[in-house]
Amino acid sequence: MITLNQPRTNPSRNWKPIAKAFEAIVGKAYVVQRQEELLVYECDGLTSYRQRPDLVVLPKTTEEVAAVVQVCNQYNVPFIARGAGTGLSGGALPIEDCVLIVTARMNQILDVDLANQRVVVQPGVINNWVTQTVSGSGFYYAPDPSSQIICSIGGNVAENSGGVHCLKYGVTTNHVLGLKLVLPDGAIVDVGSKIPEPPGYDLTGIFVGSEGTLGIATEITLRILKAPEAIKVLLADFTNVEAAGQTVSDIIGAGIIPGGMEIMDNFSINAVENVVATNCYPRDAAAILLIELDGLDVEVAEYSQQVEAICYKNGARNVTGATDPAERLTLWKGRKAAFAAVGQISPDYYVQDGVIPRTKLPYVLQEIENLSQKHGYRVANVFHAGDGNLHPLILYDNSVPGQLEAVEELGGDILKLCVQVGGSISGEHGIGADKRCYMPQMFSEADLETMLWVRQVFNPKGLANPDKIFPTPRTCGEAARAKAQEQFPNVDRF
Amino acid sequence: MITLNQPRTNPSRNWKPIAKAFEAIVGKAYVVQRQEELLVYECDGLTSYRQRPDLVVLPKTTEEVAAVVQVCNQYNVPFIARGAGTGLSGGALPIEDCVLIVTARMNQILDVDLANQRVVVQPGVINNWVTQTVSGSGFYYAPDPSSQIICSIGGNVAENSGGVHCLKYGVTTNHVLGLKLVLPDGAIVDVGSKIPEPPGYDLTGIFVGSEGTLGIATEITLRILKAPEAIKVLLADFTNVEAAGQTVSDIIGAGIIPGGMEIMDNFSINAVENVVATNCYPRDAAAILLIELDGLDVEVAEYSQQVEAICYKNGARNVTGATDPAERLTLWKGRKAAFAAVGQISPDYYVQDGVIPRTKLPYVLQEIENLSQKHGYRVANVFHAGDGNLHPLILYDNSVPGQLEAVEELGGDILKLCVQVGGSISGEHGIGADKRCYMPQMFSEADLETMLWVRQVFNPKGLANPDKIFPTPRTCGEAARAKAQEQFPNVDRF
Repeated sequence: MITLNQPRTNPSRNWKPIAKAFEAIVGKAYVVQRQEELLVYECDGLTSYRQRPDLVVLPKTTEEVAAVVQVCNQYNVPFIARGAGTGLSGGALPIEDCVLIVTARMNQILDVDLANQRVVVQPGVINNWVTQTVSGSGFYYAPDPSSQIICSIGGNVAENSGGVHCLKYGVTTNHVLGLKLVLPDGAIVDVGSKIPEPPGYDLTGIFVGSEGTLGIATEITLRILKAPEAIKVLLADFTNVEAAGQTVSDIIGAGIIPGGMEIMDNFSINAVENVVATNCYPRDAAAILLIELDGLDVEVAEYSQQVEAICYKNGARNVTGATDPAERLTLWKGRKAAFAAVGQISPDYYVQDGVIPRTKLPYVLQEIENLSQKHGYRVANVFHAGDGNLHPLILYDNSVPGQLEAVEELGGDILKLCVQVGGSISGEHGIGADKRCYMPQMFSEADLETMLWVRQVFNPKGLANPDKIFPTPRTCGEAARAKAQEQFPNVDRF
Repeated sequence: MITLNQPRTNPSRNWKPIAKAFEAIVGKAYVVQRQEELLVYECDGLTSYRQRPDLVVLPKTTEEVAAVVQVCNQYNVPFIARGAGTGLSGGALPIEDCVLIVTARMNQILDVDLANQRVVVQPGVINNWVTQTVSGSGFYYAPDPSSQIICSIGGNVAENSGGVHCLKYGVTTNHVLGLKLVLPDGAIVDVGSKIPEPPGYDLTGIFVGSEGTLGIATEITLRILKAPEAIKVLLADFTNVEAAGQTVSDIIGAGIIPGGMEIMDNFSINAVENVVATNCYPRDAAAILLIELDGLDVEVAEYSQQVEAICYKNGARNVTGATDPAERLTLWKGRKAAFAAVGQISPDYYVQDGVIPRTKLPYVLQEIENLSQKHGYRVANVFHAGDGNLHPLILYDNSVPGQLEAVEELGGDILKLCVQVGGSISGEHGIGADKRCYMPQMFSEADLETMLWVRQVFNPKGLANPDKIFPTPRTCGEAARAKAQEQFPNVDRF
């Protein structure tokens, strides 16, 4: 049995000497203490939970981060790293009695080595800047979360972020070669290297996706890729969603790995056409499938023919294609605007993030529709179909008491469905504060204990991002708590 | 400071009750106790070190492995897992006072799921069987060590094995989705899943390549790939090795990732032609470059033209190509037979395994030649040029006293050279018993300590494969020990 090591919070803490110690490290201007300024940091992209931090500190260098963490250790203060604050699982959500270490000033691209296809960045560098820096030389950085123009590489590393193009090119962990880290005790270490697959334990792999619970990355070595010669986007429309799902399976089964493969259902199509009017998405389609092919001109042409044939074989009414950059953008425009469009037609929406085996798409989509009817909330489906990564958007009104709790329950039922068919409770948004109650649904007691061993050894005082990933009672609620306790009896602190 | 937790060996141990306990678990036939039968297990592919184990046990199931490990814990007996025994770094080398757990009977393919491109195997399954099982349906398993017809998947997982095709498709860790493990205390856990990138810590990644020090994999979920439509092999010959190295850089720089890209130098070419007479490799070439392209017909044709042009631009005298399977095999035959051919012209050879940034190839090859002349031993170069993974073969005669020590010193100098240019002391053979003295050359004290934390938490008694990966005095020798102590003062047991 292993205990989830948690810091003891101290509501009557004297913050003055701590703030002073931080000021000595980073300068007075970079320690935020005024209540109204701290308000900015009370949540990340998961806006349904809010907690104001006690202090925010903005270091500039690895050494400053290490010194700040050492002060936190000295005073036993929990600390939480935060990048751009766009995360959707509350991974950077403050807790009562904590310091937020914000990487916004660590925004330098430190090295560009085109010959070895490596770029070294600080964690506050925005995802899109990496591609902008190297695109003139014909390179790009593959992981592309929807938030790529505002999210930070440090946050991407913490959450192991994905994106549309991760079907073919893999998620963040496949593109991080090495890290300089500040461990939870303030030590500075290097893991990985510029050379792929160094010997010894793969510590880089374990840090990517550890959501700030094992330390803070202060320098990140990224792999960049050569941009493809040609890109073509195909839009296929279907009169039933199952046919679109089957088409996805058949394309992969034919050995074709598109750059991206996305499905939008009828509700999403109409939301998008109402708001951004692409005039490309047929409003009467049950689903559209967007397929992006990339590679050599000849390769894209050949695959395009094969994909088109597979679409028609599965009953597509129409397949259109675009290779010209402006036309491609038009086809993608609606997909990229889908979340915002849904946001415009509903006061609030709750984004779920689950994964299923591709072959279960038709069954799961039907079950989500059943759950939607049972709970009485609309669910719009917009998702990375190629890798089975669903993003159901549940529409609700947060100003009506009880609706948030009801949609969270519906979201939970969707996650259980994902696990039942052999899938996962998170595809690319992480567990954070939001989903830790569901961890025992997916992992056995022994599996979770094994993860807790790792947390324990790197983060023995539990100061680094507490109350994330692993279930604790505070946010799980009584019912969930009882259930978690039943399923996971040997972990304390439920 | 952290201590490298090592078990206390017991030379006067009474093995009888331990053997009895093993017999109760696996049956009498599967506990090897006779000295002459134990001799078979005294080394793996690194034949220069030998140590007879005290007992060998051959379990059949996960539960049997767990029970055997529990007995080892009860008696504080060190245990070492061994697959087919083909490893080249002594990862499965016994120590004095140990049990060898051999996975040869765990040879079942447990599940084949073509629709989701997954195969689940026991660890004793031979690498090549996976491809044989699925090739009829048009799939294959990508990692292909030279020993693929005899090496086991369990050993591949332990050493994170590579192969010719890992340039394009990645090494073992990129193809392992999940593991059932017996931890060093005998607990059974599952890490990873059939779904890529599950949430929580990436424990699968940390186990792959941990060389048996964190537990024993008893079920392995592998990703299989669709076989390419077309394959073409090109053979280019050069009058200097640097030009071949530059060609490799230019091909990758053009955004082309061949399936494999191998260089052989003049000495290796002649060794091969003497022994297997391919009659394809020009004996007067300073180096040949073998390039395998795969993909769609049209893609291979297009890239083939581009690659040919790059070869000629760099001064290739001739470029020939083959798409027909038999002709392709002929071009590869010499490369595949290179180690054996060198073995026929020299009484013994020592294979080194280091990695350098591709851009340093010309410099490093020249330096290896200088080191070869300085030490007075011939070095044949046959290597995975595309990913900068060198395999210098140092020729010597083990029957002449002092020669082994001299070539080990030369091998060490080559590794130092690799580290100096920003590379690695191991590409795909692991650290094992052979290279742990060089770990402090590549990793700082803090980096190694961080790895030791992980070892400590999973393997607190140090019973699982002791004396591997991390430096200890026993095999490092006095000089190396003093050096290691100087560079890495806070780790005990030098």
